[in-house]
Amino acid sequence: MTTHRIAVIGGTGPQGKGLGYRFARHGHSVVLGSRAVEKAATVAAQVAERLDGVEGAGEVSGAANADACDGADVVLLAVPYEGHDELVATLPLAGRVVVSCVNPLAFDKAGPYGRVVDGGEGSAAESAQRIAPEAQVVGAFHHVSAPVLWGDREFLSDEDVLVCGDSAEAKQVVIELARCVTGRDGVDAGRLRLARQLEPLTAVLISINKRYKTHSGVRISGI
Amino acid sequence: MTTHRIAVIGGTGPQGKGLGYRFARHGHSVVLGSRAVEKAATVAAQVAERLDGVEGAGEVSGAANADACDGADVVLLAVPYEGHDELVATLPLAGRVVVSCVNPLAFDKAGPYGRVVDGGEGSAAESAQRIAPEAQVVGAFHHVSAPVLWGDREFLSDEDVLVCGDSAEAKQVVIELARCVTGRDGVDAGRLRLARQLEPLTAVLISINKRYKTHSGVRISGI
Repeated sequence: MTTHRIAVIGGTGPQGKGLGYRFARHGHSVVLGSRAVEKAATVAAQVAERLDGVEGAGEVSGAANADACDGADVVLLAVPYEGHDELVATLPLAGRVVVSCVNPLAFDKAGPYGRVVDGGEGSAAESAQRIAPEAQVVGAFHHVSAPVLWGDREFLSDEDVLVCGDSAEAKQVVIELARCVTGRDGVDAGRLRLARQLEPLTAVLISINKRYKTHSGVRISGI
Repeated sequence: MTTHRIAVIGGTGPQGKGLGYRFARHGHSVVLGSRAVEKAATVAAQVAERLDGVEGAGEVSGAANADACDGADVVLLAVPYEGHDELVATLPLAGRVVVSCVNPLAFDKAGPYGRVVDGGEGSAAESAQRIAPEAQVVGAFHHVSAPVLWGDREFLSDEDVLVCGDSAEAKQVVIELARCVTGRDGVDAGRLRLARQLEPLTAVLISINKRYKTHSGVRISGI
């Protein structure tokens, strides 16, 4: 397997920390990015401690978000949708595989729902691609829940990572990275614009979690 | 199990025919509706023939769409999105459980994608509810593929039926009807507005079907 240097933007949040942990566990070098360098270092130390003694684990360090991208061939966007576009605009993403797991969601007293991006004809992943036209943006890892990622199961073997993107090459990188999480290839879900469907599906999972008191995930049957 | 009289609007299309077959197979009385009464009768005879000798199977008949609703306590909308609103407006739906499995999709050379309904703040199911305010509309059965429904497997046991709706009572009826398809209860996915997420997810499944040459479906892990 190719080993990547992966910058996790928003790497001190639960989703970024959990994914960074899984990637490093399987040999990738991970830099957790944060607005606050000190916090990044603290969380990186926490992840590194968990990986202490794990054979073949990659290095984990912390940095300011933009600095985390230095030398990284893969950049994972694991940030809230609020402020997403402004943050993405500050990052050096050209020539890199950029993985967006950003979920534009909103909540009211009736529960979670998908936010409408660009009148329904956009998504966080497409916004990132528009802001960073020389990056190869891929949407993935929207549906894996943070507590499960940080949990003790070796693989989330009953879930699938759905991967969408317009660059076949970049998509293949992420399809293989999914192995760190589920133990097998991610599912090629098609074009980047299908992120419009993948991102807000998380609202359905959160609704199910509340109803069934669980951490639900998605599995694709028939493949 | 409660036995229902189920009108399937668009019952001669592949989705309606397949679901009607599954419901009748498990004892429900099914009326397949069509714009063309003769076609409805022909397809109903075809389904009835398949159920010949199946113990406990319900009756299957054909009728014009609006007539199919006579005496039905459950009405399944299995029609194309094109012309959906106009058709729904002609149906006597008040006081009935109305199940929408309508998928507003579009296709271009880059593949399938979700159509934007009401600027991203609507769905076919919500449109039906608005047009028929005295019906109890539930969204379900969006992701089960027609060839699999009409196929030989007793149950689609590796798939889930996701059910959304604002009436807990109507939702429970449909959660139980899902047993006819998967062999177990449907998954309560939350409020009716989450149909905005469930309906266009079908575009992702179609994309996966094309890529993997399969009939994919959705399973929820963790429940």
